[in-house]
Amino acid sequence: MALIVQKYGGTSVGSLARIQTVAQKIKTFKEGGAQLVVSVSAMSGETSRMIKLAKEIQDVPSLREMDVLLTTGEQVTIALLSMALQQLGCDAISYTGAQVQIITDSKHGKARIKSIDGHRIRSRLDEGKVVVVAGFQGIDEFGHITTLGRGGSDTTAVALAAALNADECQIYTDVDGVYTTDPNIEPKARKMRSVSYEEMLEMASLGSKVLQIRSVEFASKYQVPLRVLSSMIDKPIGTLITREENIMEQAIISGITHNKDEAKLSLIGVPDKPGIAYKILSPISEANIEVDMIVQSVSAREGLTNFAFTVHRNDFNKAQAILQSTCKKLSAIAVQSDDKVVKVSLVGIGMRSHAGIATQMFGALDKENINIQMIATSEIKISVVIDEKYLELAVRSLHNAFGLDKE
Amino acid sequence: MALIVQKYGGTSVGSLARIQTVAQKIKTFKEGGAQLVVSVSAMSGETSRMIKLAKEIQDVPSLREMDVLLTTGEQVTIALLSMALQQLGCDAISYTGAQVQIITDSKHGKARIKSIDGHRIRSRLDEGKVVVVAGFQGIDEFGHITTLGRGGSDTTAVALAAALNADECQIYTDVDGVYTTDPNIEPKARKMRSVSYEEMLEMASLGSKVLQIRSVEFASKYQVPLRVLSSMIDKPIGTLITREENIMEQAIISGITHNKDEAKLSLIGVPDKPGIAYKILSPISEANIEVDMIVQSVSAREGLTNFAFTVHRNDFNKAQAILQSTCKKLSAIAVQSDDKVVKVSLVGIGMRSHAGIATQMFGALDKENINIQMIATSEIKISVVIDEKYLELAVRSLHNAFGLDKE
Repeated sequence: MALIVQKYGGTSVGSLARIQTVAQKIKTFKEGGAQLVVSVSAMSGETSRMIKLAKEIQDVPSLREMDVLLTTGEQVTIALLSMALQQLGCDAISYTGAQVQIITDSKHGKARIKSIDGHRIRSRLDEGKVVVVAGFQGIDEFGHITTLGRGGSDTTAVALAAALNADECQIYTDVDGVYTTDPNIEPKARKMRSVSYEEMLEMASLGSKVLQIRSVEFASKYQVPLRVLSSMIDKPIGTLITREENIMEQAIISGITHNKDEAKLSLIGVPDKPGIAYKILSPISEANIEVDMIVQSVSAREGLTNFAFTVHRNDFNKAQAILQSTCKKLSAIAVQSDDKVVKVSLVGIGMRSHAGIATQMFGALDKENINIQMIATSEIKISVVIDEKYLELAVRSLHNAFGLDKE
Repeated sequence: MALIVQKYGGTSVGSLARIQTVAQKIKTFKEGGAQLVVSVSAMSGETSRMIKLAKEIQDVPSLREMDVLLTTGEQVTIALLSMALQQLGCDAISYTGAQVQIITDSKHGKARIKSIDGHRIRSRLDEGKVVVVAGFQGIDEFGHITTLGRGGSDTTAVALAAALNADECQIYTDVDGVYTTDPNIEPKARKMRSVSYEEMLEMASLGSKVLQIRSVEFASKYQVPLRVLSSMIDKPIGTLITREENIMEQAIISGITHNKDEAKLSLIGVPDKPGIAYKILSPISEANIEVDMIVQSVSAREGLTNFAFTVHRNDFNKAQAILQSTCKKLSAIAVQSDDKVVKVSLVGIGMRSHAGIATQMFGALDKENINIQMIATSEIKISVVIDEKYLELAVRSLHNAFGLDKE
């Protein structure tokens, strides 16, 4: 008998009516003949409500106590969902993270799962029960309650699937799968049947908000087939995220992602000496600003170089001020900055074996007179920074140029 | 250093502001130089709200899942109270029932505590922390979450005090102690400084809603000094419930209690044969009706007896119908019933060594022309059933007759 782990997020269990709908779905699925473990989040809104309470009572709420508080959210959901299943005649039992020994490290608010004891869950499955497990939470080796941080319910589901050696981990969400690009920008965007872990990782980090990146990493590490589906559609197929080898027909390019939160900073005319990159970036890191793309190029003037990088737009002003001071220290010529840029990326495992993808990409952008300001490449991804006004045009041109609308 | 266990009920922690007030109280107490363990209930209203949710989702909510649901209530309180304490600079840490191994039997919704592991709590106390423990909850030996039933937070506090060998267990509530009688009836009612476990048990079972009877039993069994105090008053003294030997000046009579929920049923002219009491009461018990006082008396007619008992007024109609049918079966003469009666009781350990208390009681009632319908006596209690219209008069006359208004 197949063993499936399903995960339903906060919106899917956001009201009693929705919990009842999810229960009906689970019951139907179970009757199809599978063993089922279900991981759930807190009802939507609950987590924010509790964070607000905590902040009213403590200026900087204790991370440990915050975890004690927040984990009640999923505990409510597992109880109500189990009751809803029982009401439908579907035998079910709930477990908190502590009860099934989801052991994490001790980093409250962003703990990482170290191990799960599948023994108790297996016994209940063998009794024919649906096992409902609280997502997002665990305990550390000292028995303190921990949380995995926002989106941690996905990770719980994948970790459960890995621990139980499940056949598939299904993440039910409000979208029905992973698309070749943002359908809001390119209506011809196509839902992918399958995509590799590696590609999904590149897409998740680039802003496709379908899955938490950590859950994909986990799935990749333990080779858990992961499926994203809609909890709103009746018989969903979704998108399967799996090992490259399991994908029958690998497209050269899988998808195009974009990121609107970029801002670009450049230091012009820096004396080209060893350690320049470190001298420029270390004050930025010390201010807790994360740097995304980095490009160092030779300047027109002899012995000088230009150094450019991107940061999140929220950090733009802070980074700019730091860079001005660095500019003086290093006797560079000038700081240039621009927060009206976006990043557009092409992702595809096929890139590794197909030459000329970058050329094809730059050609497609050139055809539309879109100026490329920065370029970064990895094995399965090419990213460019462009003026934000070209975002939609660039995404649509590339989607068309690489034939992503065709199966 | 003294070790004190304090318990704050749902009303005392019913809002963020009240939680902050309780935190201030705890901090002040701690600064007085004691180790402190604090047990708390769910914020008032939360438990009822969750029961309502559960009933909307399952016709007869699963007792196991109900416990998983309800225990989130105290878990929220322990986190918020710990945060409030930390905000005041008072180091604190929260624990759920499971975390401090409050092991109970497996009767969901009304579990009984079997043991508590005081080890973890002691370590935190030795670190100078206030330890905040969720009341009302535990886990059974299989790791299932259990609750002790309504009022179980008192029991948790007493059990913690017993396990930790605490110097005193303080129950903070909305009254400032145990009174010689209901102050609403007799304004001269006096707050007792101390009362014995045995007396408190008799008074609790008779309707003084100050303490849960199980917590007094527990305190008595483990000889935990128990103090009832008001959480509303600044420097409360309250009433100490302790061993008889610890009470310096034991009054003959400690208090007068009353119960307005009584209804009386009599079977008149039953043939006086062995097994009559069983034949009359077993159909009542089978209908889950609890019987309080029982009196069997000789009838005026030869070979016949009269049998009378009291039940809760809610059960009056049901019990009457059953008794009518029993009347036919046993060929008794008639059923007499009256739900306009009350029970008034005199409680006092001194009774054991003082003769004539009953006579004095009956004399005081006679003086007011109050007819006594039933009498029941125990070692430290005399109860009478009278017409409900005499309730206030009887309580005041007895309070005066035994000089209870004087220290």
